[in-house]
Amino acid sequence: MSYNAPLPQIAHTLAHIGRLDEIAATGAFPNFDPDLVSPILEEANKLARDVLAPLNSIGHKQGAKLTDNGVIATPGFAGAYAQYREGGWMSLSFPEEFGGQGLPKPLALAVMEMIHGSNMAFGLCPLLSMGAIEAILAHGTDEQKQMYLPKLISGEWTGAMNLTEPQAGSDVGALKSKAVPNGDGSYAISGQKIYITWGDHDMTDNIVQLVLARLPDAPAGSKGISLFVVPKFFVNPDGSLGDRNTFKCIGLEHKMGIHGSPTCVMEYSAAKGWLVGQPNKGLAAMFTMMNSARLNVGLEGVGVAEAALQVAVGYANDRKQGSAPGTEGSAPIILHPDIQRSIATMAANVQASRAICYACGAAAELAEHHPDAVTRKAAKMREDLLTPLAKAWSTDRAVDATNNGVQIHGGMGFMSETAAAQLYLDARILPIYEGTNGIQSIDLVGRKLSMDGGAAMKAMLVDIRQTARDARGTNQPKFVAIADRLMVATDALEEATEWMITAMEATRETALSGATAYLHLAGDVAGGHYLTRAALAEHGKQDRETSRSLALASFFAEDTLARAPSSVARITTASQALRESGELLWSV
Amino acid sequence: MSYNAPLPQIAHTLAHIGRLDEIAATGAFPNFDPDLVSPILEEANKLARDVLAPLNSIGHKQGAKLTDNGVIATPGFAGAYAQYREGGWMSLSFPEEFGGQGLPKPLALAVMEMIHGSNMAFGLCPLLSMGAIEAILAHGTDEQKQMYLPKLISGEWTGAMNLTEPQAGSDVGALKSKAVPNGDGSYAISGQKIYITWGDHDMTDNIVQLVLARLPDAPAGSKGISLFVVPKFFVNPDGSLGDRNTFKCIGLEHKMGIHGSPTCVMEYSAAKGWLVGQPNKGLAAMFTMMNSARLNVGLEGVGVAEAALQVAVGYANDRKQGSAPGTEGSAPIILHPDIQRSIATMAANVQASRAICYACGAAAELAEHHPDAVTRKAAKMREDLLTPLAKAWSTDRAVDATNNGVQIHGGMGFMSETAAAQLYLDARILPIYEGTNGIQSIDLVGRKLSMDGGAAMKAMLVDIRQTARDARGTNQPKFVAIADRLMVATDALEEATEWMITAMEATRETALSGATAYLHLAGDVAGGHYLTRAALAEHGKQDRETSRSLALASFFAEDTLARAPSSVARITTASQALRESGELLWSV
Repeated sequence: MSYNAPLPQIAHTLAHIGRLDEIAATGAFPNFDPDLVSPILEEANKLARDVLAPLNSIGHKQGAKLTDNGVIATPGFAGAYAQYREGGWMSLSFPEEFGGQGLPKPLALAVMEMIHGSNMAFGLCPLLSMGAIEAILAHGTDEQKQMYLPKLISGEWTGAMNLTEPQAGSDVGALKSKAVPNGDGSYAISGQKIYITWGDHDMTDNIVQLVLARLPDAPAGSKGISLFVVPKFFVNPDGSLGDRNTFKCIGLEHKMGIHGSPTCVMEYSAAKGWLVGQPNKGLAAMFTMMNSARLNVGLEGVGVAEAALQVAVGYANDRKQGSAPGTEGSAPIILHPDIQRSIATMAANVQASRAICYACGAAAELAEHHPDAVTRKAAKMREDLLTPLAKAWSTDRAVDATNNGVQIHGGMGFMSETAAAQLYLDARILPIYEGTNGIQSIDLVGRKLSMDGGAAMKAMLVDIRQTARDARGTNQPKFVAIADRLMVATDALEEATEWMITAMEATRETALSGATAYLHLAGDVAGGHYLTRAALAEHGKQDRETSRSLALASFFAEDTLARAPSSVARITTASQALRESGELLWSV
Repeated sequence: MSYNAPLPQIAHTLAHIGRLDEIAATGAFPNFDPDLVSPILEEANKLARDVLAPLNSIGHKQGAKLTDNGVIATPGFAGAYAQYREGGWMSLSFPEEFGGQGLPKPLALAVMEMIHGSNMAFGLCPLLSMGAIEAILAHGTDEQKQMYLPKLISGEWTGAMNLTEPQAGSDVGALKSKAVPNGDGSYAISGQKIYITWGDHDMTDNIVQLVLARLPDAPAGSKGISLFVVPKFFVNPDGSLGDRNTFKCIGLEHKMGIHGSPTCVMEYSAAKGWLVGQPNKGLAAMFTMMNSARLNVGLEGVGVAEAALQVAVGYANDRKQGSAPGTEGSAPIILHPDIQRSIATMAANVQASRAICYACGAAAELAEHHPDAVTRKAAKMREDLLTPLAKAWSTDRAVDATNNGVQIHGGMGFMSETAAAQLYLDARILPIYEGTNGIQSIDLVGRKLSMDGGAAMKAMLVDIRQTARDARGTNQPKFVAIADRLMVATDALEEATEWMITAMEATRETALSGATAYLHLAGDVAGGHYLTRAALAEHGKQDRETSRSLALASFFAEDTLARAPSSVARITTASQALRESGELLWSV
């Protein structure tokens, strides 16, 4: 597969939606030099374009293999991982104290977008490592931090997250793995974990497992879960590796896509581990990093959708079929209006989802580092609100985009080894893992709307209306048309929000029946908002990127925002119709 | 995979939307006994449920294989085909003159829905045979009919259609295969054909290829294509098989899905064939059966979506995760409102697409057999209008439904060997073959809307408004609410239609930029219309099927019809925004 990061668009989005200046102004990033943004993005693109993208279809055709010596990654992946590690890409946004570069998170997110876009199966390995790093950073003892973080942050080791068991997926509280005290401060962990991404591989000397399990006296359900760190090889006091721990990968799943990413069944047989954080507070510990993991999955969606867009544009320019207005003989299919429409839809949605994800990352950073407590709180609310949108809306759009990509390829798109097909198959996991998109919708309407009397969405609506006013204030016809659509869409979202908040209290089942439709509407309006902000940022400038920003915002306003008003019924009355008819609608 | 046809729903739809009574009243089907409908459907379900469905996942895991002796079907498929043939299922709607049973087409369509639903890869074999039969029926000489039709209609032989070449897909006029007269009335056919479904297999003694090729003096493009019949084994005057012809399958495609259906690369090396119909009129000959082939693909969508619905409902009842209102402990996920909503969406859409397809089949039959010329003409217009909707809307809904099916399965849905995953992978070809859905949209706005000054859509709009009035006339609140939604949606479709007809003449590129969005709106409104008609048919009756019909129509009205008004902008102003911004939107 070929991939080339859209650097002007990424840089523009980072600057205006990723709020790098504001983040730098917090003073928390003394290492950050704005002049380094471009070189960093360019270097990351070299890794993505020249190293990872060419391996992507190899990973698809020749996935990771389980051998007697554990999992062997796809040929070439270990070498690529070495380049990733040597480039210091893992360490970008982690603290200097443990060897990180201490740079703002949105910059690291932009880099991850490229990694995912060029090779999503590969990108999952650092993604999971990041989760392990955050868990240890937030909840580990000083000793655990010293023992694991420098090697994880340098990329010398990788990390993995062990949550799911056969009976415990979305309902992680149902897990049964046991942790019995050994009497020396360590625990013996036993149980089977499934769907463990990069749970084993041969790309690094050691793998640090974060594992959820139950202590002997733990309460039932989610209040009795504890988090443990369980290294594949024990670490000696001098930092060298000791004996092998007693867990292993006993099977790899056969999946539709991401074949290059081993999805392991892990068997823990009294493996030695150490408690991370407080006993029985493991779920809370996992939740502290849930926001960032969900945002990262949203970014996988952005990356894969961008890749699908590029592959589709490439094919549509090459493939000749039929005649087109103004051309002689057989014309490239890019000249057919229906194909142009499909591509424009992909382009507008990928940029909207990119903007939502970067905005979410910026909010997370300001929530942590802004000197002003009020601003921190507002940013935290924005992060919490945007996280389910970043995860679910972006990944639904990624499935749509890769679906359009297949369609543009015609019969070729159905052939399993084409890049378009691979991206479609890879993307399908995104709405499922890290909390299904249904779970995201429930999180949005059940938790995020109710926080502080709905303050998070109220503040968002204020910002969107301001964007519409700013667009109208330009007095330029295209911006004025966008302002009209955005204002009406915001009215619709406000109406739906009020209904949802009331319904969640009065008729919870009805409300939850409309949760996914509500998330779709909220994502559409947020996408329109950020596209418009991006278009406003440098409007008037006469360059391609500025013109393209306006074109995308304008098309999205007519294609998507215009549908918002009558999408309210899908949330409200359709949910009522569902409840009135009951099981007639969900039995066969 | 398990599958059990929804017989009450199929029978209800056949009766009220498939118009079996009206078709019988034409007098063209003396063999048709309404009392036989139920037994026929039940027998077909036995074949689908007990024979074909159990083979479906075997076909997925162990696709057809190419050997030195040609293509070998998945183990068990040949036996299943023998049962299909012995049951006389191929012959249902074909003329008695050639061994057919002379029954109305909608009944045969209902049977095909079950075949496709239980095993789409298998169902493609009879689907292609039917195409060959129709081509020979319409254009063959008497000798050709006598030679091929009885064996094809009995199922003793199968047929296949050879159109596509590497450079000639949607643009079939670009094909290069050659047909050189042998001087004895036969032709020597040479060239390579790709994507030939069931082009070779070991389930029957002979395979009858219908092949498009160019005569030596043929004009360029689509006006120089001729149709040939090219048997795998020549047929002796006594009907016995003679020598092997000189063509063969030289490769099988590696596809995302329908692994049980061999997709062949066929090499013709001066293979002997005979002209079917007039020289250079091959494309027109293919088009005479295009309507029925497209409708059949729509039915594949109905079948696969129904299967995905059943699999999802089964899983959601079995899988326990989390708690649900009113239950203790872990609850089956079917009790979660978000899952209920997904399933209801699948159910409403599969029934809407079933109704559109059966209505299309009924129109086709009345167009052919009604004694009154005015009625025949009206029915023909309806068939022509519904065909692109049946093909494209139904297959887009099938992709949606199988996508929802995967999502309901969570991580399990991403495992490539689960039934949910297989259905998702199988369904993805449907929007592509037999004219991509983009081609269907262009056919709808480019040809179907312009026929007779737009008479086809005008007549449809009149019928839909009458349905809305009938719903209102019941004075029952649910029907009145449906009537409101249907009437407003019809206004939207009428507005969009007027814009589209004008735009096709004034600004064709703008119009074509909205063609797919227009087809989606037209399909939504047609779906709501037929769901409402079905609900009205026996309303007042106190049985489950009647109540369910109303529940589906009511939910669809709020979920889908309610969105129609603001979908108009997606057709009109979004297309204008696309053209104004131009290539900025479709380059990267």
